[in-house]
Amino acid sequence: MSNPQNSFGNTTFLPGSFCARKRDVVWANTLLYQLEVLKRTGRYDAFKLKWHPSYDDPPDHWPVPNHLFWDSDVAKWIEGACYFLTERDNADVHAAIEELVDMIRSAQQPDGYLNIHFTVVEPGKRFTNLRDLHELYNAGHLIEAALAHQNLYKNGRLLEPILKYVDLLAQTFGPGENQKHGYPGHEEIELALLRLHQHTENPKHLGLARYFLNERGNPKGVDGRHYYEVEAEARGERENEMPKYYPQRKSYWYQQAHIPIKDQPSIEGHSVRATYMLTAVADLVRLDKECGTKEYQTALERLWRSMVSKKMYLTGGIGAIKQWEGFGIDYFLPQGTDEGGCYSETCAAIGVMMVAERLLQLNLNSEYADVMELCFYNAVLTGMSCDGKQFTYVNQLASTDSDPSMRQKWFTCACCPPNVSRLLGYLGGYFWTSNSDSNSTNVNVHMYGSATIRLKNEGHDVMISQTSDWPWKGRVRFAVKAPQSSVVTLRLRIPGWASEWKITPEPDDLVMENGYAILPANWVANHGDFTLDMPFKTRVISPHPFSNQNVVALARGPLVYCVEDSDNPWVADHFKSLLFDPSSTISEKAVKDETTGETIIALTAHGPLSFLQVNGVATPSLPARAVSSDTDSRSHLHFVPYYFRANRGGRGQMRVGLRVKQAITQPNARQCQLM
Amino acid sequence: MSNPQNSFGNTTFLPGSFCARKRDVVWANTLLYQLEVLKRTGRYDAFKLKWHPSYDDPPDHWPVPNHLFWDSDVAKWIEGACYFLTERDNADVHAAIEELVDMIRSAQQPDGYLNIHFTVVEPGKRFTNLRDLHELYNAGHLIEAALAHQNLYKNGRLLEPILKYVDLLAQTFGPGENQKHGYPGHEEIELALLRLHQHTENPKHLGLARYFLNERGNPKGVDGRHYYEVEAEARGERENEMPKYYPQRKSYWYQQAHIPIKDQPSIEGHSVRATYMLTAVADLVRLDKECGTKEYQTALERLWRSMVSKKMYLTGGIGAIKQWEGFGIDYFLPQGTDEGGCYSETCAAIGVMMVAERLLQLNLNSEYADVMELCFYNAVLTGMSCDGKQFTYVNQLASTDSDPSMRQKWFTCACCPPNVSRLLGYLGGYFWTSNSDSNSTNVNVHMYGSATIRLKNEGHDVMISQTSDWPWKGRVRFAVKAPQSSVVTLRLRIPGWASEWKITPEPDDLVMENGYAILPANWVANHGDFTLDMPFKTRVISPHPFSNQNVVALARGPLVYCVEDSDNPWVADHFKSLLFDPSSTISEKAVKDETTGETIIALTAHGPLSFLQVNGVATPSLPARAVSSDTDSRSHLHFVPYYFRANRGGRGQMRVGLRVKQAITQPNARQCQLM
Repeated sequence: MSNPQNSFGNTTFLPGSFCARKRDVVWANTLLYQLEVLKRTGRYDAFKLKWHPSYDDPPDHWPVPNHLFWDSDVAKWIEGACYFLTERDNADVHAAIEELVDMIRSAQQPDGYLNIHFTVVEPGKRFTNLRDLHELYNAGHLIEAALAHQNLYKNGRLLEPILKYVDLLAQTFGPGENQKHGYPGHEEIELALLRLHQHTENPKHLGLARYFLNERGNPKGVDGRHYYEVEAEARGERENEMPKYYPQRKSYWYQQAHIPIKDQPSIEGHSVRATYMLTAVADLVRLDKECGTKEYQTALERLWRSMVSKKMYLTGGIGAIKQWEGFGIDYFLPQGTDEGGCYSETCAAIGVMMVAERLLQLNLNSEYADVMELCFYNAVLTGMSCDGKQFTYVNQLASTDSDPSMRQKWFTCACCPPNVSRLLGYLGGYFWTSNSDSNSTNVNVHMYGSATIRLKNEGHDVMISQTSDWPWKGRVRFAVKAPQSSVVTLRLRIPGWASEWKITPEPDDLVMENGYAILPANWVANHGDFTLDMPFKTRVISPHPFSNQNVVALARGPLVYCVEDSDNPWVADHFKSLLFDPSSTISEKAVKDETTGETIIALTAHGPLSFLQVNGVATPSLPARAVSSDTDSRSHLHFVPYYFRANRGGRGQMRVGLRVKQAITQPNARQCQLM
Repeated sequence: MSNPQNSFGNTTFLPGSFCARKRDVVWANTLLYQLEVLKRTGRYDAFKLKWHPSYDDPPDHWPVPNHLFWDSDVAKWIEGACYFLTERDNADVHAAIEELVDMIRSAQQPDGYLNIHFTVVEPGKRFTNLRDLHELYNAGHLIEAALAHQNLYKNGRLLEPILKYVDLLAQTFGPGENQKHGYPGHEEIELALLRLHQHTENPKHLGLARYFLNERGNPKGVDGRHYYEVEAEARGERENEMPKYYPQRKSYWYQQAHIPIKDQPSIEGHSVRATYMLTAVADLVRLDKECGTKEYQTALERLWRSMVSKKMYLTGGIGAIKQWEGFGIDYFLPQGTDEGGCYSETCAAIGVMMVAERLLQLNLNSEYADVMELCFYNAVLTGMSCDGKQFTYVNQLASTDSDPSMRQKWFTCACCPPNVSRLLGYLGGYFWTSNSDSNSTNVNVHMYGSATIRLKNEGHDVMISQTSDWPWKGRVRFAVKAPQSSVVTLRLRIPGWASEWKITPEPDDLVMENGYAILPANWVANHGDFTLDMPFKTRVISPHPFSNQNVVALARGPLVYCVEDSDNPWVADHFKSLLFDPSSTISEKAVKDETTGETIIALTAHGPLSFLQVNGVATPSLPARAVSSDTDSRSHLHFVPYYFRANRGGRGQMRVGLRVKQAITQPNARQCQLM
């Protein structure tokens, strides 16, 4: 098996299908729009190493210069563009990539060093603040861009300078006496190096990734002390001097560097960093034949479990806390700012998909694929507008006046927009994993839609197509084309939310394995065409009760729904005082939205609406009976998919989890002998 | 009218009654126990200005030395002891006070300066860090001690040096060119100066208090900049260097100094500081004839409302956030550490009582008295064990393994224990307020119990007694003794929680005013004996729904109840998964506890117990139906008053608000035309 960034090329999407349309939007609008933004903001030319006026701006978050990520913004755009160019053409995009690559080549220093900020703004300060600055993070994205570029152009123009840079890094970091025993504050280069190793098979690349992961969180990394502590001292930082994302000094859990990865009991800190770390750990487990990977696998599964069962939102979003863009304590999952949190960054959900896919390669279990699909259709897709020109960085489950559910054109820290394009570029790689030897082929189907995978295996060309109205309807028609001589086994994921499902024609004694229905080669050989049916029913879901949120949400198939002011124009308080009766009658209806051209299945709850009446309360406690609800004349509540929110104007009032309607009665007191 | 610290002497408590017993415990155990601790820890001798080994300890919270509060620990003990000595005698206590006062006198510097740390440890650093260090806070407590001492001994031994110190402060701080335009980071001296002014009538004392309050939060205090900013710069502090209680740099809301008091829209920051500030503001409004006090009254009422309706726990406790020992955002009131908060410091609840009493003097309204009583019987009394020898600093509503419901003997920062003794010393001052002119007397009864107030008014000696089993029973018998010629009007508070009440004999056309029943002079003259009846019924209360806590608690009369492992030994998870049915039958029973000798009314909920079954959940969302509860064979749940918790050993498992039992059903879906 390999990474989706390599395998996606086997998959094509049926034109007009849901995923195909999302990808077309990126191709038609997002890539070119982002190119224009890169040019307008100075990022495009930055590798020319000229001074840019914005370099004088004070940092929004000391000590991180606002332009520190520019290298990665460019790199992610190149990477995303290269994925799309494997199947489409656009001279301007080709030209831009070529020019960017030339600039990157020209920016490389004689010793191989390659970074905008530390060449133009702070030369001589290289590798002096791994804790806060994104030097190695940028390097990681350059590596990933180089791999995508090489895969497309095969001309080494980008890979060559990057390999030279990696040589410098391999010299600089390591256990040697004259090497730095450090590791990046923001993980990314580890997974990039492991991808690189799969391409180069150079043990040095595997070794550097392994070193970064093993050294991370070492309490005695330098002369018996933590690397970040020694590094900060060397910078002349004081004990109580700290970045604003540190709630307390030495909050190294922010970077997952509080203790070694293998010993970490729970997932902590900045959520994008955490998922990138887990992705790299999973790849290390898969690729590294060194001892110790068993412990990494145990830690990986422990940290995944910690994240999914205690720190993930209904939408698949992660990261409740804004201050450190990351995880709060277990079950702390407020829906919005006015409740104390909800960050749920788009990039973090993309990171979860990356981890889930890697876990599926280690251990085929539909639990991972369920979360991967949940993130894609909800926490990730909600990050981009239907026209691919507007984005969200934070994806709260409930809006407030201070944080309305609205999109922006761009961000100072612009990690999310190119990350979405990049993901959609290699989306096909998430749909299925496969492996082959001689004439036998195994394909595990993780996601559904309308797509075809073509696998070449020693002349045994296997082609598998799935056709469906996913994510709206649960009927998937499969067609397998393979030579008689070939042996094709299929495993179909049965989603955890599918209360019923059926394969037609029905196999005798069908075997299920970890949530996958196994179609053995002999059955597949005799049934080139078959159907998997998972009738979609609207269901009520709720967060874990320990989240102390007495709310429920509606879901249907892979989609989580929300209420918006566009469909419920009367709302004035972001649906905060609305009470929802989970036993309401819900109707489902296909609606074509004129603004976006998107056809969705909208939901409507019928029955008079109720609202909390708790205005002007002047006491710390209410008699339970005073939590009264008034039933209103309005009798419909309209829901749309969460990914579809903030596409039709409106006032940015939105909510996913709705307060449950309930009555609380007073007890009947009985007195025994009192004094 | 005057402050409870002056008026308490008119009140005596009926021996054996609830409050009398609490006060006896302090007299018999707490005062002497605390004296011994003061001696053991070095506080007692500290004013001798010798070096103490602990002065070398690194601070627990930079930049605050651990011993910084020692002056106030001694001062609060003297103050509390003096209150008790007005009615009782103990040669050792007298002797200790005399010795402490001699040491304090000897510690005064020639210019009047009086502070342990800045004389012994950091001489020359006086008044260089008002933001973090408690120099003026200590001065405030010395002033309050001096007033109590003077009231008792009338010999000026403590008041004299303190007045000299205050003169120095009045020279040092003010609008003058050569004066510091600063104000204390921890309010206290303001209310002390206003009490002092009532004693001395020296306008300088009123003026200094007014200056501190007016200047607070001035964004342009020094050369157009915030005082704390300039001060920090002068100390050589860096932009990003900050104490750990600052979540971000320049978090001046921590000290209520982010904007001027008059403009503050909501109550913020460290909760003890906030309540001390409001107390001073209330006194300023009452005493200051300068213009501008109207705006202070508006701000005072706004901030009180913000605190009580949005930031107060069911117990009257305030302060959800541990990091800054203070308020979170509106309605953020988690019950325990594992839910993200709950600090509810004992001193803060005492502060709320202070503010409430001051507000009652400005505007007689039972809303204030209700909160005063709520705090006393719950958030305050829970801070001291029945034997008066153990204390809590933090008073969470739910325990966890990391923060069990247990008491300690003492604290490094020992503000709470002496604060409780001090409060119980002058408790009588909270029961009623009165005013008289010529032969007419008005008495407003705020709290109930068994107590007598004696008022001398130009020879018209008025005596009013109330006798009851409060807080266990709601029947209060009144007896008024006054000469024929005198005119006595009574106002009786009718608690907001009293669903029914009756005065016997029943007055015709009884007038109610802001929650007080008015008994006019002519009626009182003819009814020297009467009864106020407020039958106690166990009631279910809940926090505001916007707190997102689907919990209810039991309350009876002024008491809030909790469940403890002592009575429910089966508990293993701090009652976190317990589901409570508010419609259960509740029985009330008087129980004499052998360990403590305390007789309480315990509550028992009948009917099989239910528990959440959500173990091993591996998904971010649950089908609502999966939030299943298992009904257990156990059929009783036992409750005790919250103040009574942690007195009988046990494992420290306790909870006030219990998760509400409810069933959530699935919707019935109806499909319209889908695509």
